[in-house]
Amino acid sequence: MTNSKLIYLDNNATTKTDEKVIETMLPYFSEYYGNPSSIYEFGGKNAHKIKEARDKMRDFFGAESDKEIFFTASGSECANMAIRGLLASKHAAGKNHIITTKVEHPCVLNLYKHLAKEGYNVTYIGVNDKGELNTDELYNSVNDNTALVACMYANNETGAVFPVEQIAQKVKDINPEVKIYVDAVQAAGKIPLNVKNTQIDMMGVSGHKFHAPKGIGALYVNSSIVLEPLIYGGHQERGKRAGTENVPYIAGIAEAAQLAKDALNFEAVQVKRLRDKLETGLLNTVFNARLNSLAQNRVPNTTNIGFEFIEGELILLNMDEFGICASSGSACTSGSLDPSHVLKAMNVPFTALHGSIRFSLSRFTTEDEIDYTLKVMPSIIEKLAKISPFQKELSALKQKRGI
Amino acid sequence: MTNSKLIYLDNNATTKTDEKVIETMLPYFSEYYGNPSSIYEFGGKNAHKIKEARDKMRDFFGAESDKEIFFTASGSECANMAIRGLLASKHAAGKNHIITTKVEHPCVLNLYKHLAKEGYNVTYIGVNDKGELNTDELYNSVNDNTALVACMYANNETGAVFPVEQIAQKVKDINPEVKIYVDAVQAAGKIPLNVKNTQIDMMGVSGHKFHAPKGIGALYVNSSIVLEPLIYGGHQERGKRAGTENVPYIAGIAEAAQLAKDALNFEAVQVKRLRDKLETGLLNTVFNARLNSLAQNRVPNTTNIGFEFIEGELILLNMDEFGICASSGSACTSGSLDPSHVLKAMNVPFTALHGSIRFSLSRFTTEDEIDYTLKVMPSIIEKLAKISPFQKELSALKQKRGI
Repeated sequence: MTNSKLIYLDNNATTKTDEKVIETMLPYFSEYYGNPSSIYEFGGKNAHKIKEARDKMRDFFGAESDKEIFFTASGSECANMAIRGLLASKHAAGKNHIITTKVEHPCVLNLYKHLAKEGYNVTYIGVNDKGELNTDELYNSVNDNTALVACMYANNETGAVFPVEQIAQKVKDINPEVKIYVDAVQAAGKIPLNVKNTQIDMMGVSGHKFHAPKGIGALYVNSSIVLEPLIYGGHQERGKRAGTENVPYIAGIAEAAQLAKDALNFEAVQVKRLRDKLETGLLNTVFNARLNSLAQNRVPNTTNIGFEFIEGELILLNMDEFGICASSGSACTSGSLDPSHVLKAMNVPFTALHGSIRFSLSRFTTEDEIDYTLKVMPSIIEKLAKISPFQKELSALKQKRGI
Repeated sequence: MTNSKLIYLDNNATTKTDEKVIETMLPYFSEYYGNPSSIYEFGGKNAHKIKEARDKMRDFFGAESDKEIFFTASGSECANMAIRGLLASKHAAGKNHIITTKVEHPCVLNLYKHLAKEGYNVTYIGVNDKGELNTDELYNSVNDNTALVACMYANNETGAVFPVEQIAQKVKDINPEVKIYVDAVQAAGKIPLNVKNTQIDMMGVSGHKFHAPKGIGALYVNSSIVLEPLIYGGHQERGKRAGTENVPYIAGIAEAAQLAKDALNFEAVQVKRLRDKLETGLLNTVFNARLNSLAQNRVPNTTNIGFEFIEGELILLNMDEFGICASSGSACTSGSLDPSHVLKAMNVPFTALHGSIRFSLSRFTTEDEIDYTLKVMPSIIEKLAKISPFQKELSALKQKRGI
């Protein structure tokens, strides 16, 4: 941005590390730096901190036991560790059918693409035009040969929440041997997690989506499941994930999880209010704005809006001039000029597909920032509309909407 | 420790994060926290920092190109990514023989154990009684079916340095198709790395062994090699390792690498002097001390000393009372009561095997700390000798050594 202002509305891409999280981590770099596996007390202190963090994460997942929590380095590692670890385990022996959705994050979609090459039979479940999962299609695809269903909890681009608890239950009613992985990366910190008393077998979260640093994730694995490791080596993480424990980040993600859990009500009320204000404001004041986030059940911080007949990248670059950060598609697929695979799966019309912007708030987003964004966006769109090659279509739209 | 003193002589287990490294990382938590994949400048700033860090790591490895550097979360992930990624790639197609040494770190040994279960034919190369690799045994084991040799650069327990450049050259003279992975975790920051103009194909290092935090590693992969990913997903790390980049730690490991490179001469002279002082002092003043680190070529910070007829864990717990941290075996295998697989491979006699202690210094170790350790150790050993069940053997030894 050329502007010194920073209005960060891209919290689904990553978040600011909470100052309290930084404070929690700091002593573990150069003060208590021992190896948690060491015999002496200086190392044991860190082993104790990890134990405490694991219990906080258990609470965050709503899990039964600390032994069900594994620390990883990312949401992507969680998905790879859970999915590949399950398929290599006894639980999937002799089965080669796996299911996922068309709107997953690339860490699941690209892994499934690889697994298809390895010979797995893959079913991709679609969504309706509101971005809601076609659950009947999912249930109908389950068969005796199905090893795994991988389904996200909340979609990163639209914020649509999928009924993962109900899906897990129904899938197991059809075939009790199928295992369920839930990518909860975009749900964690936005809506409560509660794996206990559900049929969900595994669930992954990523710290940097809820104000912990980038480079730490946590994976819930039900105690009935024995995964093959993704990273072989030392005895760390109960022999399931080798590597000296990242003590500062482990302490950090646990602190962030507790802060996020404590802020869930704020998220549901205040963050939602600002998100709704932004959404309604844009739809009311920008003549070519179209809501893509139509799912009935949605996380409170996300909206996805199409600006018809205008190129998304141009919108983002112009917003950047005003210091406003948002995104088209997800950060993990950016760099490619292909339109969002999520919006395509929703059959968002071509006219809006390329001009769709995701706004994602956090508990640090202020009313002033939303007001400023609402002030700036109409002029950006007006300016870009003037240079759009679709003048006839834009005029017609303007007339029709009367904005 | 009950003592408030901390004398940290376990730097091969992990190190204190350098204050300059912490300073380098801090702004990337809550100030420049954007996702490096984002289109806006706030994210681009971080992409630039990663580029700068990658170049520093290239320099640290002595590599040709930035494109040969991949950031990971640990030394264990480096080994798994390199070895599994190579075996799944075209480079290993149709081959099923793999070679390693008997004294590798568990991240290689346990992975090889798993690969043997998967059907790979594994050869483990031994060491002599000084801990030096039987290189002829290695060369004789290479055949047309050999896909990979994984060999450590420096041993974590004895400090023995293996001639990896020469090994890579000779192995390729025998069969040019064999690929070479070097686990340089215990060499990095202690002796210079220089992959350019060698036949080494891949090399892994771990930040927390040279004063970066735990939870960051870097892998060199020669540009001629195309690995299959270990973690599938987004486009990060040139599509080879998915997951939002850990910007603070990436900046941190690069800073630590530069500091370590600048301190190599200090390491070779001053750290070595203190290590030698400790080693000679213990051998001269403790009647049952026996040097296990006998390799001619050794990293400057490590010594391994056996205290005959005394239990290592007891020695460590008594040292802990005085605030001195050291270890028996490696941290990654601790928790088990089995004696060190490294010392066993060296045929260290049973009488010393269970009482062997590794002392590993760093550039932060002071002369006072070494003097204090030298003052304290004889009395610890005398005290434990009194309660040892091997009184006759200890008396004989005392008489013989005349200490």
